[in-house]
Amino acid sequence: MEEFKTIRELYEACLYGDDILKDSIDGVALEGWIRTNRDNGSIGFIELNDGTYFKNAQIVYNHDLENGDAISHFLSGTSIQVKGRFVLTPNMKQPFEIQATEILLLGNCDLDYPLQKKRHSFEYLRTIAHLRPRTNTFSAVFRVRSILSMAIHEFFQNQGFVYVHTPLMTSTDGEGAGEMFHVVTDEKDPEAFFGKKASLAVTGQLQVEAYCMAFRDVYTFGPTFRAEKSNTTRHAAEFWMIEPEIAFADLEDDMALIEDCVTYCTRYVLENAPEEMEFFDKMICPGLLERLKKFTETPFSKMTYTEGIELLKKAVKEGHSFENPRIEWGMNLESEHERYLTEQVTKGPLFLTDYPKELKAFYMRDNEDGKTVAAVDLLVPGIGELVGGSQREERYEVLKEKMEKRHMNLKNYEWYLDLRRYGTCKHAGFGIGFERFLMFITGMENIRDVSAFPRTYKNLEY
Amino acid sequence: MEEFKTIRELYEACLYGDDILKDSIDGVALEGWIRTNRDNGSIGFIELNDGTYFKNAQIVYNHDLENGDAISHFLSGTSIQVKGRFVLTPNMKQPFEIQATEILLLGNCDLDYPLQKKRHSFEYLRTIAHLRPRTNTFSAVFRVRSILSMAIHEFFQNQGFVYVHTPLMTSTDGEGAGEMFHVVTDEKDPEAFFGKKASLAVTGQLQVEAYCMAFRDVYTFGPTFRAEKSNTTRHAAEFWMIEPEIAFADLEDDMALIEDCVTYCTRYVLENAPEEMEFFDKMICPGLLERLKKFTETPFSKMTYTEGIELLKKAVKEGHSFENPRIEWGMNLESEHERYLTEQVTKGPLFLTDYPKELKAFYMRDNEDGKTVAAVDLLVPGIGELVGGSQREERYEVLKEKMEKRHMNLKNYEWYLDLRRYGTCKHAGFGIGFERFLMFITGMENIRDVSAFPRTYKNLEY
Repeated sequence: MEEFKTIRELYEACLYGDDILKDSIDGVALEGWIRTNRDNGSIGFIELNDGTYFKNAQIVYNHDLENGDAISHFLSGTSIQVKGRFVLTPNMKQPFEIQATEILLLGNCDLDYPLQKKRHSFEYLRTIAHLRPRTNTFSAVFRVRSILSMAIHEFFQNQGFVYVHTPLMTSTDGEGAGEMFHVVTDEKDPEAFFGKKASLAVTGQLQVEAYCMAFRDVYTFGPTFRAEKSNTTRHAAEFWMIEPEIAFADLEDDMALIEDCVTYCTRYVLENAPEEMEFFDKMICPGLLERLKKFTETPFSKMTYTEGIELLKKAVKEGHSFENPRIEWGMNLESEHERYLTEQVTKGPLFLTDYPKELKAFYMRDNEDGKTVAAVDLLVPGIGELVGGSQREERYEVLKEKMEKRHMNLKNYEWYLDLRRYGTCKHAGFGIGFERFLMFITGMENIRDVSAFPRTYKNLEY
Repeated sequence: MEEFKTIRELYEACLYGDDILKDSIDGVALEGWIRTNRDNGSIGFIELNDGTYFKNAQIVYNHDLENGDAISHFLSGTSIQVKGRFVLTPNMKQPFEIQATEILLLGNCDLDYPLQKKRHSFEYLRTIAHLRPRTNTFSAVFRVRSILSMAIHEFFQNQGFVYVHTPLMTSTDGEGAGEMFHVVTDEKDPEAFFGKKASLAVTGQLQVEAYCMAFRDVYTFGPTFRAEKSNTTRHAAEFWMIEPEIAFADLEDDMALIEDCVTYCTRYVLENAPEEMEFFDKMICPGLLERLKKFTETPFSKMTYTEGIELLKKAVKEGHSFENPRIEWGMNLESEHERYLTEQVTKGPLFLTDYPKELKAFYMRDNEDGKTVAAVDLLVPGIGELVGGSQREERYEVLKEKMEKRHMNLKNYEWYLDLRRYGTCKHAGFGIGFERFLMFITGMENIRDVSAFPRTYKNLEY
């Protein structure tokens, strides 16, 4: 039984009908933390979790054990080593149990341990972010976070994309309009270290474009920062972004890549975290699995912003009530409008394209109509915007004029303009807010509950 | 020929003897950038690179083409589309060529393009960091950087490790002695945003320990920051780190994991970037492939710091000359000492263990001798220190006393001490500086040449 040292290995052997696994096997040794410990006088049951698997292993112990009475007083949270006999229990709720021959105390748990059996609110658990991954919900969230990360890397690397680590300390403002954090070593002399002002990156896109012009297909996956004071369930001061960029590609290619990417990653999580996803479906967001399955199977629709506005106007005329019913071309769509289009009109994922250029960043490509840019937002039911992308302005003169109109300091962006002077080509890319994607997949509703140690306005614990 | 749209696909089909690939095939269409273009009057040759593969495709064109004369004036750096006929050329240097039937100009390249045919110094190329990935050397470096990143994720995820994104903006100083960058929104009121002082993380270890106590095996892979003014070839203000942490594990388990990890990742790169690695071996660091092969095949040696000191003393006595020959127990080994031990004594990778506790961080576990801690550095020939790790102090009282002795503000670390009160267990971990690992694998000698946009003292371009 040397091969089985973790609870995951035992469960997987049961699931996949491993031949090595007989009805019972002596000599199992596990280490882990007690989730619950109950004792009916002569026999006791420990739910043991060792972190390798979502579910616990049931440990059965007898008071006959040398330290049997002591064991029955082990508290939730205690770490122990268990030796014993593995027994298949086909008629029970759990597929197997461990009949303990020895239980060794490794680390006591103090009486004030906050994770007692009762259910805690997410608000409360945020105040003990160092302990909450020991609960079912956050164990599921953060394993899925890890698996989703891997899905992203596999998706891009399998297609030859080059992963680029763009810098986080930067002297440019990638979105051209930013609430940025400053980086200093001396508040009285903010330029002391770098000899110029330094900020934390809000995007890696500009820099990754330089790599796109060398490697054709590239992506970033790393942290970004916004000094936003808004206190919503969807905004954080520090979050991770995925930013792919593809050369010799237009908005159509971009949309095809977005669709491939988000459906691949969603399927990957469904396949690789079945216990966790089942838990979310049952306990966090009923209907989640059905929604995700549909998401991966429905072809995404396409519609221009202008068509979207017409449909929204029509909806208002026909009596649909929006909080903001003043629909007019040029407006920034709000979440209710986006959700109407994806939930009521296309009843599935929707690419909304070709936005008024005033609404979008300077680097997006001007369309021929003179009014719109080749931008795209992916809207999904239940969430609204999940991905934002665009074809980039690859024409030197057009880009320069756009930047001048926005009064940008061209000197700081000379290198970016260079990319349009030396073998420019049409290219496109997009950005996915990783936490938002994770919320979409898990059904969790607050960004603070999908970041390990969330950073928001007035909150910097740990 | 629809399946082959990139130069990588064509090379791989040649390499793996793809059946689809006949001696010649019409209808190939490629897009890419001209590396060189030479013309002998009636026939011309373009070396085309499309970023998908290290090597170029040779395009042969005839002046008979509609725009034949124009083509012969296309400059290096120009982006083009090529249509034509793929022909195997078994007797030539390159395995195939494309006989162009049509060459379309996509993006001109201005005359001042800095990447002309001649060889440029790395120093010069650092000043055009947005263009250098278009050169052979940096194309190789940054594809290997991407592949090495994937190797790390595969290594850990294949074993069930959970990837944790630890926060970058933090209120604690993980190394207990830091040159940290501060994060502010208003220099006059540095605490305006978070209500307390914020710094950029120098490590994610403390936070990832909390996750280790929930998931057993975890790792981080993300950026870290040091406001170091030192201007060396090995230090940068922003770099990436890998920090695994394993529960129910001691220093021996830690060393086994380090050895597995670095040899797995090295082999992975050798297998997945053969052209790039051959290039480094030939052009950058002769003997590199031999050194790496040996590295992956030689079992790592182990030696205590105390034994190391004795051997160094003996070496001095026997006439070996060090720049610093004053060897005494308690000293910080310098690179020359580390390299002597790994290059002259063990002639292979060496784990040096059990350092004087004064030299190491507060969180390392006290050994029974009262003088040393359960720390380990991995020393490798040609480099010196590659990895640093330790078993962590898991005993609440011992850890608290260590922190008090160092006058740390315990209030900030209460959550970290909690991990020792609620089901503590022995655990260990290590840190790999990703850029240093990349330098070891590629033979590149300056950290500025393995970071896409390096950040160092007084340098914050792009």
